[in-house]
Amino acid sequence: MKIFLNDYNQETIEKAESILFNGNGFVGLRGNLEEDYYNHFATNRETYLNGFYESKTINYPEKMFGFTPSGETMISVIDGQTTLITIGGERFSIMTGTISQSSRYLDMTKGITVRKLVWTSPAGLKTKIKISRLTSFVYKNIFAMKIEFERLNHNAEITLSTHLNFHPIRTIDKNDPRMSHETQSIQVEEIDLPNKTCTFTTLTSQLKAQLQWQINSQLEQTIQEKRIVLNSILTTDSYEKKLSYAFADENHTGIEKNFDELLALQTTYLVDFWRTAKVEIASEENLEESVNYGTYALLQSLGTNGTTSIAAKGLSGSGYEGHVFWDAEMYVFPVFLHLQPQLAKSHLNFRYQTLEKARANRQLFGYSQGALYPWRTISGSESSPFFEGGSAQHHINSDIAYAFINYYRYTDDLDFMKEAGFEVLLETARVFTEIGYEKAGSFHLDKVTGPDEYTVLVNDNYYTNKMVAYQFEWIGILAQIIAKDDPKCWEQLVAKLNVTSKELEQIQRYSRNMALPFDKEQGIIAQDREFLNKSGWPYNPETTKHPLLLNYHPLTIYRYQISKQADAVFALMLFQNQFTTETIQRSVTYYDQITTHDSSLSYSIFSAVYSRLGDMEKGYEYFLKNARTDLDNLHKNTKDGIHTAAMGGTFMAILYGFCNLQIKDNALTLDPHLPAEIQSIAFTTQFKNECYRVEVNHKSHTIQKVTS
Amino acid sequence: MKIFLNDYNQETIEKAESILFNGNGFVGLRGNLEEDYYNHFATNRETYLNGFYESKTINYPEKMFGFTPSGETMISVIDGQTTLITIGGERFSIMTGTISQSSRYLDMTKGITVRKLVWTSPAGLKTKIKISRLTSFVYKNIFAMKIEFERLNHNAEITLSTHLNFHPIRTIDKNDPRMSHETQSIQVEEIDLPNKTCTFTTLTSQLKAQLQWQINSQLEQTIQEKRIVLNSILTTDSYEKKLSYAFADENHTGIEKNFDELLALQTTYLVDFWRTAKVEIASEENLEESVNYGTYALLQSLGTNGTTSIAAKGLSGSGYEGHVFWDAEMYVFPVFLHLQPQLAKSHLNFRYQTLEKARANRQLFGYSQGALYPWRTISGSESSPFFEGGSAQHHINSDIAYAFINYYRYTDDLDFMKEAGFEVLLETARVFTEIGYEKAGSFHLDKVTGPDEYTVLVNDNYYTNKMVAYQFEWIGILAQIIAKDDPKCWEQLVAKLNVTSKELEQIQRYSRNMALPFDKEQGIIAQDREFLNKSGWPYNPETTKHPLLLNYHPLTIYRYQISKQADAVFALMLFQNQFTTETIQRSVTYYDQITTHDSSLSYSIFSAVYSRLGDMEKGYEYFLKNARTDLDNLHKNTKDGIHTAAMGGTFMAILYGFCNLQIKDNALTLDPHLPAEIQSIAFTTQFKNECYRVEVNHKSHTIQKVTS
Repeated sequence: MKIFLNDYNQETIEKAESILFNGNGFVGLRGNLEEDYYNHFATNRETYLNGFYESKTINYPEKMFGFTPSGETMISVIDGQTTLITIGGERFSIMTGTISQSSRYLDMTKGITVRKLVWTSPAGLKTKIKISRLTSFVYKNIFAMKIEFERLNHNAEITLSTHLNFHPIRTIDKNDPRMSHETQSIQVEEIDLPNKTCTFTTLTSQLKAQLQWQINSQLEQTIQEKRIVLNSILTTDSYEKKLSYAFADENHTGIEKNFDELLALQTTYLVDFWRTAKVEIASEENLEESVNYGTYALLQSLGTNGTTSIAAKGLSGSGYEGHVFWDAEMYVFPVFLHLQPQLAKSHLNFRYQTLEKARANRQLFGYSQGALYPWRTISGSESSPFFEGGSAQHHINSDIAYAFINYYRYTDDLDFMKEAGFEVLLETARVFTEIGYEKAGSFHLDKVTGPDEYTVLVNDNYYTNKMVAYQFEWIGILAQIIAKDDPKCWEQLVAKLNVTSKELEQIQRYSRNMALPFDKEQGIIAQDREFLNKSGWPYNPETTKHPLLLNYHPLTIYRYQISKQADAVFALMLFQNQFTTETIQRSVTYYDQITTHDSSLSYSIFSAVYSRLGDMEKGYEYFLKNARTDLDNLHKNTKDGIHTAAMGGTFMAILYGFCNLQIKDNALTLDPHLPAEIQSIAFTTQFKNECYRVEVNHKSHTIQKVTS
Repeated sequence: MKIFLNDYNQETIEKAESILFNGNGFVGLRGNLEEDYYNHFATNRETYLNGFYESKTINYPEKMFGFTPSGETMISVIDGQTTLITIGGERFSIMTGTISQSSRYLDMTKGITVRKLVWTSPAGLKTKIKISRLTSFVYKNIFAMKIEFERLNHNAEITLSTHLNFHPIRTIDKNDPRMSHETQSIQVEEIDLPNKTCTFTTLTSQLKAQLQWQINSQLEQTIQEKRIVLNSILTTDSYEKKLSYAFADENHTGIEKNFDELLALQTTYLVDFWRTAKVEIASEENLEESVNYGTYALLQSLGTNGTTSIAAKGLSGSGYEGHVFWDAEMYVFPVFLHLQPQLAKSHLNFRYQTLEKARANRQLFGYSQGALYPWRTISGSESSPFFEGGSAQHHINSDIAYAFINYYRYTDDLDFMKEAGFEVLLETARVFTEIGYEKAGSFHLDKVTGPDEYTVLVNDNYYTNKMVAYQFEWIGILAQIIAKDDPKCWEQLVAKLNVTSKELEQIQRYSRNMALPFDKEQGIIAQDREFLNKSGWPYNPETTKHPLLLNYHPLTIYRYQISKQADAVFALMLFQNQFTTETIQRSVTYYDQITTHDSSLSYSIFSAVYSRLGDMEKGYEYFLKNARTDLDNLHKNTKDGIHTAAMGGTFMAILYGFCNLQIKDNALTLDPHLPAEIQSIAFTTQFKNECYRVEVNHKSHTIQKVTS
């Protein structure tokens, strides 16, 4: 299971910085070349720690009441991957001399990235170089690198210089609202060269961390401007460095292990992981690679300590400022729910740990009750500076509720629902009961933004309302289950949350009477109450520039029936059994015509809906367009970080689309439609504390419990 | 005609800075006390030149395509009103000693502000001080100040120190989105003490200006930090200083005149002005003062050089950054149209001169044709950083068109329509024809914002659509008139503007078929297509905090049926004859209930509509609430500058409301409804190059041509 990215051209180098990143859910390093090259190619040379961010005041040219006052940005900690090499006095660089026998890849079974090449220096010295890197899944504080040399035609001296850089190097174009526009630096507090540690913090947040380093070679340590430089002369054939990053209260375990020991532990961990996590796809295209790379990248990015989670770009880049969005629940969460439910639970824990901040966020909006989760965050506080397409997306509340519900449906973990789930469901529901209203027997939610950011502040967004109705329904279901299973616990919840039977009845009534706009004439669900009255996109589709958000004024985008991504269609996917096939068919066809798929969250959902309908041409076409989002750099911005939602989407398109895996009558069911291009699919899923093997081909499909 | 503001308490001092400002349409000084007091009271001590601004890049936390890249801010030029006085070595201050026989007022007939008092110093020296100030209407570059002293019980030496301050002093709280949040300074280029001039410019705009000063007393000139200080010992009984401000290509005429000469010229000018400009109101309340103060403040603020106009706060303060908005057309313009049409024309010239910039602004939005005037501007470029409640208010185009049309209706100045008017009407219309669309026989305009900023990005805003329909209709009318009157000119216009008969026909059809949302059940016009479906404001009216925009999240404000100001009701006022009385009655009653009148543009329009209906209780109540907006500081922000729109509104409520002055069959007509509290109203209006005297009382009303 390897991903190769060999070339040294600009696009590949940029792409590789994201795709070949090293991460373990805590430490993340971009896949930069070890030697510096930023005078030649655009680069972001950075290292991140999940949960480590800088706070900043958000300045608005015209600040309105309740605008998010400050935001969080994931910033690079000390980056220690840079290793300058000289051979016989000549500086190793891909820009000089010649390169042969070059190979660069990620090995997903061993959990390392490898770079191999033979470099012939301008003077003719020929050296084989192999660089291996890992961030340990066993010791989450550890990044390790090993560089092996083989002098092929000489015996010259080799020197190495490792830079521990305090200031992020960013040369990638930032004229994009999706990117962070400021380069902020950590603040170095103390450098202790004898003990090989450096303590750092940020200017305004309270976070404090320490880097410790170990290098296997004789070295001279100096402090230079904005970096510590560690110079060595190679004494054996290999150079090893280990960097350990720890928050104030944690320690640097594992740093004493050598690279091969770390690698052995890493391999053991991953062999075990893949045993039940690998998705097997028999097909001409290398689809298996795509889906498993996605799973691996997500594993590398997901924080598991209960106070961190997974950013839209994981730990691979600083796009979207390292923020966690709704895709954590609606795209990434299902992957872990099926493969490693305890990791899925860890994400839910992150939400539960930040419920208090969500209550504070609700107050920012002037709402008097409940909790409103932030649209974008690191620590749990809202960081969205643009409310129309940001914090107005109140569906985040229901997305989180949906994840809790699905976690319960797949695990039967009622204890967690008592401890956290019910509280989250109820508190997040209360914002909706406050802003919603009943009119002529229907419950309405006005002026919120749905997933489609090309239409903002709408009334009765179908996706939102449908999700809220589901959340409301489940509040009733869980209330009954908990009350029956554990009356004392229920009593405590009632007291703690101040919940009355009147409130529960009201929530059930709202759920039943939720407004779900439907166009009878066309037989389609309506994205919102007014969406279908809007005029069509008036500009020539041939010359329309994508993504619209970078090429048209929001006013123009908002004015027409044009969708960035699956919105109403997402509701079709999630609640398939509640629609007639005809409605699904008509609706997906309609929305497909007006959707630009400018978001990487779109194709996967359309693919799943088409696949279930048996439209395998579309189902497969859209699957392909999504599955290789990063590997083929389809959005031209993989350099800013991987698209975790697209990866989750690939997984969903397989499980929920091609295989149509569902829970029915408390059991897993399949109703597969495989595209002709795929011969078979096999994977393992967890369900209610058991492990199930799923195998699907064009003739048959089976779900079998695995006895371990 | 005097406005008195005697007290030296904080509110009066702050209010007086705006109300007692000196302006002549070019130079404007805040009515600060001459001695410094900013350690004791909040103050903005500033001098403005109409059209002098600083440019600044607008920084957005999340910048979208087409967001206004830079903005203009009116900044204080060198402020020279500060005059520190010592008497017998004791520093004159209202904070020490005692004050008696104090009087402070604006004399609108002489065109001066006067401050008189007797100051007894802590040591007991008693001195009568009279300070007179004017900005000359004859020499628009000139500000002059005269300070007269009478030593009542001593013969001590009096010294004076005039400060020419380069850096604005602003201590007034700025935690308000309506205020400029940065204090920017002019850049001093050259100080020439012997020639008593100082040349200054701005950091980023290209503007260059010069201050010249003259003081009648022996003086020592020094340059201190951020100011020039002119020290004198009083040699006669009075101290005179004159400051002349001129752009690079203008000169300092008038500076050689002494104060009394300047005052004589000023008085002559104003006596002539008031001859036809004064509105006489017989009433218990001092209403005459309010309306005439308004006219005077507008006269003091209106730029008349064709490249400047009138800001929302005139030249009295830096609120709204000195920007010109739509109220210049819809509130202020009518005052000059009736009183001095050549001044009204001068404003239209400002719009015509900036048509090219409006074309550039249209491109910023990605529209392919026509012109879109900026929502807020100084030089003609868009300065609005918040498009939802700002540049989305495309009705600005029709407001400007409306002003051109009304100018023509009142003056018969067809030449100006050929030269400027038709081009402005057509070019501004083209943006609407591009973004509008026909559906089922109706022409719709979606996703624009109407006057009510508490509901943004709406579809078929009634006010906007009605105004556009009127503009479209007049394009046809003017085309016919010009083609008939001057075929050659028409030919040239056709060629210049590339207009086809097909386009003209289309515009006429759109006008006829304009969508004008109407609620049949309630018999009221609808503010927009969806407005009446919104839920009502759910919070307790008793505890609701005003203005909403400073106390509630925009999302909350947008969500409910709550209006900031007259929106649909403005259409009722402008097009009264096109509605049944019942529709007007029902509509105004409905919208009144849901309007917060948080904008100073609201009460006057409601007053006029109620008055015409004969509901004089409401008509008069709202008239009062508007008429004393600034004099009674009703919005608590007069300190930031006067409300020019409220002043225009007062005038309109009298002429269009109480008197119901209209043009019918090419003649002026009246249909008055006077409130019981007003015995009679009389004024003079210009109409088709003639002067008409209007007299209205409870028994009769007359319009008589005045033969001069």
